[in-house]
Amino acid sequence: MTASPPAVLDRFTAPVQIEMRQVFAALVSPFYQMARYHLGWVDQHGATAAGDGGKGLRSTLCLLSSEAVGGTVERVLPAAAALELVHNFSLVHDDVQDDSVSRRHRPTVWSLWGKPQAINVGDSLFSLARMALLRLSAHAVPADHVVHLAVRLDETCLRLCEGQYLDMDFQQRPEVTLDQYLEMIDGKTAALMACACYFGAFLGGGYEPAVAGHFSEIGRNLGLAFQIKDDVLGVWGASGTTGKPVADDILSRKKAFPAVYASTKAGPRVRARLAEIYAQPELCQQDVARVLELFDEAGAREAAEAAARHYAGMSIGGLAGLGLENAAAAGLRDVISFAVERER
Amino acid sequence: MTASPPAVLDRFTAPVQIEMRQVFAALVSPFYQMARYHLGWVDQHGATAAGDGGKGLRSTLCLLSSEAVGGTVERVLPAAAALELVHNFSLVHDDVQDDSVSRRHRPTVWSLWGKPQAINVGDSLFSLARMALLRLSAHAVPADHVVHLAVRLDETCLRLCEGQYLDMDFQQRPEVTLDQYLEMIDGKTAALMACACYFGAFLGGGYEPAVAGHFSEIGRNLGLAFQIKDDVLGVWGASGTTGKPVADDILSRKKAFPAVYASTKAGPRVRARLAEIYAQPELCQQDVARVLELFDEAGAREAAEAAARHYAGMSIGGLAGLGLENAAAAGLRDVISFAVERER
Repeated sequence: MTASPPAVLDRFTAPVQIEMRQVFAALVSPFYQMARYHLGWVDQHGATAAGDGGKGLRSTLCLLSSEAVGGTVERVLPAAAALELVHNFSLVHDDVQDDSVSRRHRPTVWSLWGKPQAINVGDSLFSLARMALLRLSAHAVPADHVVHLAVRLDETCLRLCEGQYLDMDFQQRPEVTLDQYLEMIDGKTAALMACACYFGAFLGGGYEPAVAGHFSEIGRNLGLAFQIKDDVLGVWGASGTTGKPVADDILSRKKAFPAVYASTKAGPRVRARLAEIYAQPELCQQDVARVLELFDEAGAREAAEAAARHYAGMSIGGLAGLGLENAAAAGLRDVISFAVERER
Repeated sequence: MTASPPAVLDRFTAPVQIEMRQVFAALVSPFYQMARYHLGWVDQHGATAAGDGGKGLRSTLCLLSSEAVGGTVERVLPAAAALELVHNFSLVHDDVQDDSVSRRHRPTVWSLWGKPQAINVGDSLFSLARMALLRLSAHAVPADHVVHLAVRLDETCLRLCEGQYLDMDFQQRPEVTLDQYLEMIDGKTAALMACACYFGAFLGGGYEPAVAGHFSEIGRNLGLAFQIKDDVLGVWGASGTTGKPVADDILSRKKAFPAVYASTKAGPRVRARLAEIYAQPELCQQDVARVLELFDEAGAREAAEAAARHYAGMSIGGLAGLGLENAAAAGLRDVISFAVERER
């Protein structure tokens, strides 16, 4: 187990980036500069940049899943690029929806070009993600399998939307249960990681839905673990490493794991005080400090870390059940461990 | 030629609606009630409604194009539903981007549920559009042809985004030429109508890209005519019939045809006065009245109607060039005439 990103997360960066750039190759309108900016390829003035394009977690899961069942990287790259583009589409729209001004240590698309254009940029990334996937046809994947994966990608995107709906809806609700929270992150985060593993195993392993379905569950549990850990970092992470303002989730009264846990599992005094604070029309920095104390009292951080480890354990257990003894399976284990041990 | 909708626009409403509802059949999350509301199927409280679901122009173009080359309606319905869903996805996002509070005589999705949720609703309609198209596989369309159309749909959506980008960007620009305007509406409106005709002719006529390409041009010219006429209605239309506030386009300083024409083709006095008015930080109703006078003086309405008729003529000419003597081709001619003669 390690807190720094495992080397395997760097392994596929170059080929995935090349594949993603292929999808953009013929696009000449200045419109696409905003998408290229979001992806870290250019700065806000359009000059070439080497910006942070994210961890590449979803493409890595896809490519490792392919290798784990004996597939190659090359053939699966269009699917890996599609997953990264779907993830980035959702981030551009998320930032608009959440009023987030910075992402990956840079101003968000909407904060530079306004919300109407940012919505449009997200929409174009959504189309480009589909076009990336459909390039599988040019990689000798039979068309019926391409259609199967295209349906699955859009089913996954609907799960993303459903999760996003709940996430936003929860901000208006006085109380959310842990089960409701899990349903929300299952859509918002776990569905795309499940899809990533499904794609890789399906394409790498001779188009077998049963094997791919098993990988999908590994990805799903990893996704649940990843999101719960993300929630821990959202409250206790240092903004210097996460790129997000400290305790952002508290100010925006997100029903992240610590808030849900403390509001439903703590003693009556802590619950009452939290309810009182969250009932205010506006929260200030003093409220954040009080909420942090109440989270501590409730043991919310420990509970969250334990829950993240629980789902990571389910993910590793699912992988172990396949009895795969190869470097890619070991890489997947490293990624799963990283998801819960990381500090950013 | 007729100003009231031709009967052919009603012909496919029922089968297209049934196909669209099939796409929603398995979706149980309350989230989808917002999309159903937008489509006119339920009211804002979720009770069954018989709301205005739009003209169904794109699905009609698709199905008539199929019939015109000897195809059936039944087999092409998934493509027709996909086109309507793409159109509706773009409307939900448009309304957010343009701050429009009403659409089809009802409050817009964002004005009821807020912009963050409306962005999410649009995203889900975008995925559902793709899923609708991929249902062609279940209608015995070979998978390689389904992939071909899926690529074309996303290429079309990119054209939509490019047009939308220009439309919004033009609002900040002091002057826009007629050529730039045409480039904008070619993406924003014409591309999806071109795609509709392509889909119909491709699926109905034995998967021949050349024939479908010819239909695509017919749809494109129709789209240009339709948008220019829409711009006329945006300035001089009665809000009781269009469902939009009068002279909305002027207040939001949209570079619609009349504004572009008057700003570039009128005499120097009219151009100078228009530039002066548009240079103000805010426009009021008095400015709208002055702009309307200047448009009159420039002959902008006549020029717009003439341009719309020009593109409608190109569209009808393209259709005539195919020498098709059947009811569907006659129906297409009616739709093209309606596009420029309509008063809503």
